[in-house]
Amino acid sequence: MGYDRAITIFSPDGRLFQVEYAIEAVRQGTTAIGVKSKDGVIFAVEKRRLPLQEYIGSEKLFKIDDHVGVAIAGLTADARTLVDQARVHAQVNVLSYNEKVSILETTRDLCDQMQLYTQNAGVRPFGVSLLVGGVDPDNGTKLFLTDPSGAFWGYHACAIGNGSPAAREYLSKEYNPDMSLEELKKLTINTLKEVVEGDFETDRFEIAMISTEDKLWKLLSVEENQALLDSLEE
Amino acid sequence: MGYDRAITIFSPDGRLFQVEYAIEAVRQGTTAIGVKSKDGVIFAVEKRRLPLQEYIGSEKLFKIDDHVGVAIAGLTADARTLVDQARVHAQVNVLSYNEKVSILETTRDLCDQMQLYTQNAGVRPFGVSLLVGGVDPDNGTKLFLTDPSGAFWGYHACAIGNGSPAAREYLSKEYNPDMSLEELKKLTINTLKEVVEGDFETDRFEIAMISTEDKLWKLLSVEENQALLDSLEE
Amino acid sequence: MGYDRAITIFSPDGRLFQVEYAIEAVRQGTTAIGVKSKDGVIFAVEKRRLPLQEYIGSEKLFKIDDHVGVAIAGLTADARTLVDQARVHAQVNVLSYNEKVSILETTRDLCDQMQLYTQNAGVRPFGVSLLVGGVDPDNGTKLFLTDPSGAFWGYHACAIGNGSPAAREYLSKEYNPDMSLEELKKLTINTLKEVVEGDFETDRFEIAMISTEDKLWKLLSVEENQALLDSLEE
Amino acid sequence: MGYDRAITIFSPDGRLFQVEYAIEAVRQGTTAIGVKSKDGVIFAVEKRRLPLQEYIGSEKLFKIDDHVGVAIAGLTADARTLVDQARVHAQVNVLSYNEKVSILETTRDLCDQMQLYTQNAGVRPFGVSLLVGGVDPDNGTKLFLTDPSGAFWGYHACAIGNGSPAAREYLSKEYNPDMSLEELKKLTINTLKEVVEGDFETDRFEIAMISTEDKLWKLLSVEENQALLDSLEE
Amino acid sequence: MGYDRAITIFSPDGRLFQVEYAIEAVRQGTTAIGVKSKDGVIFAVEKRRLPLQEYIGSEKLFKIDDHVGVAIAGLTADARTLVDQARVHAQVNVLSYNEKVSILETTRDLCDQMQLYTQNAGVRPFGVSLLVGGVDPDNGTKLFLTDPSGAFWGYHACAIGNGSPAAREYLSKEYNPDMSLEELKKLTINTLKEVVEGDFETDRFEIAMISTEDKLWKLLSVEENQALLDSLEE
Amino acid sequence: MGYDRAITIFSPDGRLFQVEYAIEAVRQGTTAIGVKSKDGVIFAVEKRRLPLQEYIGSEKLFKIDDHVGVAIAGLTADARTLVDQARVHAQVNVLSYNEKVSILETTRDLCDQMQLYTQNAGVRPFGVSLLVGGVDPDNGTKLFLTDPSGAFWGYHACAIGNGSPAAREYLSKEYNPDMSLEELKKLTINTLKEVVEGDFETDRFEIAMISTEDKLWKLLSVEENQALLDSLEE
Amino acid sequence: MGYDRAITIFSPDGRLFQVEYAIEAVRQGTTAIGVKSKDGVIFAVEKRRLPLQEYIGSEKLFKIDDHVGVAIAGLTADARTLVDQARVHAQVNVLSYNEKVSILETTRDLCDQMQLYTQNAGVRPFGVSLLVGGVDPDNGTKLFLTDPSGAFWGYHACAIGNGSPAAREYLSKEYNPDMSLEELKKLTINTLKEVVEGDFETDRFEIAMISTEDKLWKLLSVEENQALLDSLEE
Repeated sequence: MGYDRAITIFSPDGRLFQVEYAIEAVRQGTTAIGVKSKDGVIFAVEKRRLPLQEYIGSEKLFKIDDHVGVAIAGLTADARTLVDQARVHAQVNVLSYNEKVSILETTRDLCDQMQLYTQNAGVRPFGVSLLVGGVDPDNGTKLFLTDPSGAFWGYHACAIGNGSPAAREYLSKEYNPDMSLEELKKLTINTLKEVVEGDFETDRFEIAMISTEDKLWKLLSVEENQALLDSLEE
Repeated sequence: MGYDRAITIFSPDGRLFQVEYAIEAVRQGTTAIGVKSKDGVIFAVEKRRLPLQEYIGSEKLFKIDDHVGVAIAGLTADARTLVDQARVHAQVNVLSYNEKVSILETTRDLCDQMQLYTQNAGVRPFGVSLLVGGVDPDNGTKLFLTDPSGAFWGYHACAIGNGSPAAREYLSKEYNPDMSLEELKKLTINTLKEVVEGDFETDRFEIAMISTEDKLWKLLSVEENQALLDSLEE
Repeated sequence: MGYDRAITIFSPDGRLFQVEYAIEAVRQGTTAIGVKSKDGVIFAVEKRRLPLQEYIGSEKLFKIDDHVGVAIAGLTADARTLVDQARVHAQVNVLSYNEKVSILETTRDLCDQMQLYTQNAGVRPFGVSLLVGGVDPDNGTKLFLTDPSGAFWGYHACAIGNGSPAAREYLSKEYNPDMSLEELKKLTINTLKEVVEGDFETDRFEIAMISTEDKLWKLLSVEENQALLDSLEE
Repeated sequence: MGYDRAITIFSPDGRLFQVEYAIEAVRQGTTAIGVKSKDGVIFAVEKRRLPLQEYIGSEKLFKIDDHVGVAIAGLTADARTLVDQARVHAQVNVLSYNEKVSILETTRDLCDQMQLYTQNAGVRPFGVSLLVGGVDPDNGTKLFLTDPSGAFWGYHACAIGNGSPAAREYLSKEYNPDMSLEELKKLTINTLKEVVEGDFETDRFEIAMISTEDKLWKLLSVEENQALLDSLEE
Repeated sequence: MGYDRAITIFSPDGRLFQVEYAIEAVRQGTTAIGVKSKDGVIFAVEKRRLPLQEYIGSEKLFKIDDHVGVAIAGLTADARTLVDQARVHAQVNVLSYNEKVSILETTRDLCDQMQLYTQNAGVRPFGVSLLVGGVDPDNGTKLFLTDPSGAFWGYHACAIGNGSPAAREYLSKEYNPDMSLEELKKLTINTLKEVVEGDFETDRFEIAMISTEDKLWKLLSVEENQALLDSLEE
Repeated sequence: MGYDRAITIFSPDGRLFQVEYAIEAVRQGTTAIGVKSKDGVIFAVEKRRLPLQEYIGSEKLFKIDDHVGVAIAGLTADARTLVDQARVHAQVNVLSYNEKVSILETTRDLCDQMQLYTQNAGVRPFGVSLLVGGVDPDNGTKLFLTDPSGAFWGYHACAIGNGSPAAREYLSKEYNPDMSLEELKKLTINTLKEVVEGDFETDRFEIAMISTEDKLWKLLSVEENQALLDSLEE
Repeated sequence: MGYDRAITIFSPDGRLFQVEYAIEAVRQGTTAIGVKSKDGVIFAVEKRRLPLQEYIGSEKLFKIDDHVGVAIAGLTADARTLVDQARVHAQVNVLSYNEKVSILETTRDLCDQMQLYTQNAGVRPFGVSLLVGGVDPDNGTKLFLTDPSGAFWGYHACAIGNGSPAAREYLSKEYNPDMSLEELKKLTINTLKEVVEGDFETDRFEIAMISTEDKLWKLLSVEENQALLDSLEE
C-alpha cells in the first residue's frame, strides 16, 4: 500500500506506480489523434466547450517550430511547460547548427525530460502524453507517441486520451499509408466522430496539419473545419 | 488515504488531490465575475464587510498594468504574490520590447508559475483562481480564467467563487457579446445580486473596468457604484 | 487526520490547518487594541505581570519607525523577528527614496513574509497577528490587521487576542470616527477594562500613540497611564 | 498524536509541542537563580557532584564579557553553543562600535537565535533557559529570563530549573530591590538552601556576581563560598 | 513491510529491495540475447509491434560507438539516459587518449552510474539490464551483462528479459565458442524462436552485430533478417 | 512511540532519545579507565581478542598530540573521526598560537562537534564517549569525560563502558589524589581486573600514560604490561 | 519497529540496524580468505560460475596498488566504488609524498569513507567487507579486516562471507605464522575446500598474492591454480 506514495520507487513486481497513475491521467484526457503519410501529418483533437467560453487558440494542439508540432492528452498545464522547452530546444538547434531540429531529436529531448521526472525525488511525473509529428528537413514525415515514462514509439497513425481504444481500432481498419492529405483529413474526422459523444459540429474538434509541400504548421479555421464536415457528407 | 498528503503525486485514478483541494479553497471564496465585449472588460466582486473595517482599496481586484487586471477568488495572500510577479513581468515586458504585455502573455506567465507549484515538492499549489482581463495593444479585449493547476481558458463572461454556479447560469442566459460597457456593468451587478445574500448595497460589491477607449484600469468609486445601483431601479 | 502534519498542504475542504492553528495561537494571546481617527492612532495592550518582574519596555508594542508601530497578539518571539524586518525595511525605504515608508507598504511587506511561511516547506507559519498603524507622510492615519495567512484588512478600530470578541463588540458600539485623541485614549482604556479580569491598574496595560501632529511613536509612562485612569473616574 | 513529531508545526490548539518539551528539559535541570539591585547582579546555581569529579570551572555559570554573564538550566551542551555565539557577538560589538554590548542587546541576540530554531525544519529548539544579567555601560543593572521559544522577560529576581517554583516563592517573599550586594548574596544562598536536598555545603552551589562598582564578572572561590555560609550562621 | 519504501536501505536479511524490484522490471521486459565468438558479437532482441506502428530504429539495440553497443531489457527510457552517457564517455575517451574506449571500461562506467543510484537517496535504481558487447582495439570480443545493482559479469552468450530462462538453457546446449558469425546469427535466431510466442516473422525481432573484421556496429535490415530466416529453413 | 525516530526532537518529558540510545551504545562498549594525579595521567582499556588477530596498535587508546590523548568506549569508527578532527585542531593551535592546545580546549572542541550532531537533522549523534586527558603547558594534569550529548565533566578518576559501574565503585574506594604514577598504574590494572571476566593476561588490556615529567603520550609495551602484572603479585 | 527504517539512527539498545543489515549482506556473500606471514600475503576467494560465463578478471579480488590489494565479500558494485577511491588515494600518496601508501593508511581511508555512510542521511552503508592486505615499504606484511561500520582489525589470517565460521575455525587450527608462501597457499586452498560445496576445481576459486620479495600483486592463472590443486594431492 505504500508503493505509490513516494514517486521514485519500484513496487515488488517492478512497476512504477506514479508513472502508471500519470498514464491514467492521460487516459482521462480528451481524445487526440495523429496520422501521417508521405504527404504530411495531420493532428485532430476533441474539443470540450462550456457556455460563454471564447476560443483563444487550441489548448491541445501546439506548434513547436514551423515543421513540427504536438497534439496532447492529459494535463494541459504540464504539456505547456514541455512545449515551452521543446520550442527553446528547436530554436537553439537552428542557432547552433543552422538547421531545423529533426522530429526524432525533438521527441527524444521531450522524453529525456519526462524520464528525469520519473527517477528523481522532489518532482512528480508529467501527466501528459504527446503525439509529436512533423516533416523532417529531408521531407520524411514522422509521428511519435510519447508517454509519461519517457518512452516513445513511431506510428503511422495513433490516438491517445479517453477515446483512444475505439479510435485506434477504427484507424487500424481504415488507415492506408498511401492516403493523400485530403484523405487523411477525412480519416481523422471520421475517427473522431467515432469517439466524440453527442453532436459532432465544428465546436467539437480542432485540426492542425503540416504538409511536406510547405512544411508549415497550420491550424485549420472554423470555416475550413466546416468545409471538411460538409465534404464528408457529400 | 495517503495520496493527498504529499503534494506532487498522482492518485491511482490519475488525480492530483492537492490541486483539487486548492480548487476547493477557491470554491469557498467570495464570488468574482468578469465579462467582456468589444468595448471593454468589466470585473465585479462580492465584498464582505465587518463592523469597523475601513476601505483600503480592493482585496479582490488588482490592476497589473494600465490595460490589464485581475479579479480573484480564494486566498488573498496567495493572489497578492502572484499579482506582484505579474506586475514585474508587465514592466519587464515594456522595458525589453517597448510595448505593453499582452493579456495572453500575462496569463500564461501566471499559469506557468502556478503549474510549477503543482509539480515540485516543498511548496503547495496556489489556493486561488484569477480572472485575468484587459485590452490588448491591438484593441482586442480578452478574458481568461486560470485555476490552481496552471490551466487557463478564454471566456466572454465567467464567474468564480462560492456563487459561481448561479452566476454562470445567470450569465449564460443574459450575456450578449454585443453589449455596450454600460450594459455589461448592469449585467455584472445583476449577476452579483443573484448570488449575494442579504441587502445589496454599495458596501457589498466592487467594480473595476477597462474600456477599449482609454485602455485604463478604473476602480469605480462608491458614488459611481451607487449611481449604478440607482440606474438599475429606473 | 494527516492534513495538519505537513505545513504546506490543503485539506480536502480547501483549508490550511497549520495557518488555522497559528491563528489559534493568536487567539490565546493577551488582548491588543488599535483605534484611529483623523488625529492619530492609539494602541493598547493587556499586560500580565508575574511577581518580581521588572519592566523592560513593552513586549507587545513595537515602534517600527517614528510614524509607524505595531501592537501584537500571539508568540512574542515570532513578532520580534517580523518587527526587526519591518524596521530594516523602513530604513531602506528612507535611504532608497528619501521618504518615510507608508503604513500600507510596511503592512504589505510584513504580510508577504508571512504568506511565504504558509506556502514553503521547512518552516511553520508565524504564530502572531499584528495591528500595524501610523500616520502616513500625507497625514492620513492607517490601521491594518494582519493574520498568519499573510492577509490584511483596513480598520478604524480593531482588537486581537483572547479578549478580542468582547473588545470588538464594545468598540463597535462606542467607537466614533470623529473622536479626538483624548477620547480615543479613554475608549481604548474602557475597552480593555471590559476584557481584563481582576483589578485594572496601571500594571495591567500599556498604551502607545502616534498623533498626526508630531507623527512620533510615543509609549505612555506609568504616570501618564495613571493620569488616564484617574481621568476616567472623573 | 502526530503534532509533536515535526519540530516546526502547530497543534490544533496553537501550541508548539517541541518548544514545550524543550521547556520540560529546562524544568528538569538543576536550579539556577539570579537577583539584582542597583549595586549589581548575583547568580547562584545548584551543583551536583559525583564521586571522583574534579572542579573544572562552572558548567552552569558562564561569563560572556566582563560586564555580562549567564546562569543556565537545561542541557549544558546546548547552552555552551549559545554562550559561544554571545561571546563572539559581544566582541564584535566592541570592535564595531567601540563600546560594550548592552545586556538587552546580548539577550535579544541570544533569543533571535533560539526563535530561529523553533521555526525552521532540520533543527530542534535549544533545550536550555538562560538568566542573562550584568551591568550596562550606564551602570544600570539588568536581569533577563529567556526560554526556548526565544521569548524573554525582565526580572528583579528569578529562578529556573527543577527548584524554581519553591525558589521563586521564597524570592517573592524575601527579595527587596534596595538590598546591598552582601544582602543579595545571602538571599540567593538562602533561596538555594530552600530547594537543594540534603546537606548544603560549598560543594553544592556556585555563585557569580557583577557589581556596578567594577563591572567585572567574578566567580566566587570555595573559600568565599564557605565564608558566605559561615556568615549566614552568625 | 517498510523496508522497500525508502530506496537506500537494507532489509534485516541484507537485501536491497528496491534493487530487486528493479530487477523484476527487467525480468518483465522483452527478451534480449547476446552471443560472441572470436569473429564478433551478435545481439538479438524480441520486437513487439502494435498495429499502425512505424519502425523508427530499434528501441532495444543501441550503438554506443562504432565498435561497441548494447541490447537492453527493461525500461526503455531508463536505458536511453544510460546509453547517452556511455556515448559521451566513449567520445571523451577518444578525445582524451586518442583511442577507442574498451568494452570493459564502457561497462564499468555504466555500472558505476547504476551503483550510485542504489546508494543515494532522492533517486531510484535504473530499471534496466544491459548486454554490453563489442570488439576491443586489440580485436578481442567482449560481452558483459550488467544488472540494476551495478554489478556485471563476462559471458560468451547470455539472455535477459522475460524469455531469458528458456533462452539461457537453449544457449547453454547449443552455443559453441568456435562458431562463425553466420553460425552465431542462426543460433541467436533459433534461441529467440524458442521464447517468442506466436508466428516468428521479421517483425518480431531485430539483430545487430559487430564483426572483428570491420569493428563496425551494424543493425540488420528487414531484408537481411528475412534472408536469415530463409536460410534457417534450408 | 514516534519520539525516538527523528534524531533532533524532544520527547514530552524533555528527553532526547537518540542521545540516550547513543549513550546506550557506549554502555555496551568495553571498559575504559582514566586516572590522574599531579604526576600524570594513566589510561587503561579492556581488550577483546579473537583467534588469529594481530596487534596493530590500540583501537581504544588514541594519542591526539604528545601531551594529550583519549581512551574511548563505544563505536570505534565514530571515535576515529572525532580523534582525526582533534588531531588537526591540535596542530592548527600550534600553527596559530605557537603553543600546545590545552586539554580543556581539546575537549570543548570535541564536544562542540558532538553537540552539533544532536541538534541538526541529517546526522546521528556520535555513539562514543571519550576520556580526554593530558598534561597542560602549565604542567597541570587534566581528565575529562565527554558523552554523546556534547556535555563534559572534570574527573580525578573515571571509567566508561560496560564495566564502568563496578570500576567507578572500585576507584572511589581506592583512588587517592596523591598517588604516584606507579601507584596509579597499579590502581588502573586492579580496577580493570575487577571488571574483566576470565583470565587477566597482557592480551586483555592496554595502558597508555602521559607523565608531567616528559609530557609524552606513551603506550606501554606487552613487556611493560607483563612487568606491571608481575609487580602486582609481589 | 521503526528503528531500522531511517539509516542514521540508534535503536533503544544502542544498535545501528542498517549497519547490522549491511553486515548481513556480507554474511551472505561468497567466502573470501586472507592469510599472511613474514613472506607475504595470500588472498583466496570462492568463485561461483554460471554456464556460458567468461572469465573477465576477478570480481572479488582487486589490486589497489602493486603492493596492496583486497579480497571482498558482499555487494560487488559497492566494493568497486570503494576500490576506485582507494586506487586514487594510493596514487595521490605517491604524488604527494613520493612513497607508496601504507597498508594501514589505505585501510583507514577506506574505513573513514564507510563510517561516513553510517552517520549521514541520504546514503546507505556499504554492503561489503574487505580484507585489505599487502607489503609495506618497510617489508612488513599487513592484513586488515574492515566491516560496514567503518571499524577495522588486524589479523594474521581471516575469512569473511558465508563460509567464514567454518573457515575461521579451520584457520585457527592450521595456521602458523612461520609458514612459507607455499605453505600459506596450500592452507588457503585447504580452507576454501572446507567451505565450498560440490567439486572443488579451478573454476571454483581464485588466488592472489603479494610476496615480500617483489611486492607485486599477482593473480594466479588457471594453470597455477591447477598446479596448486595437484600439489595438494601429492
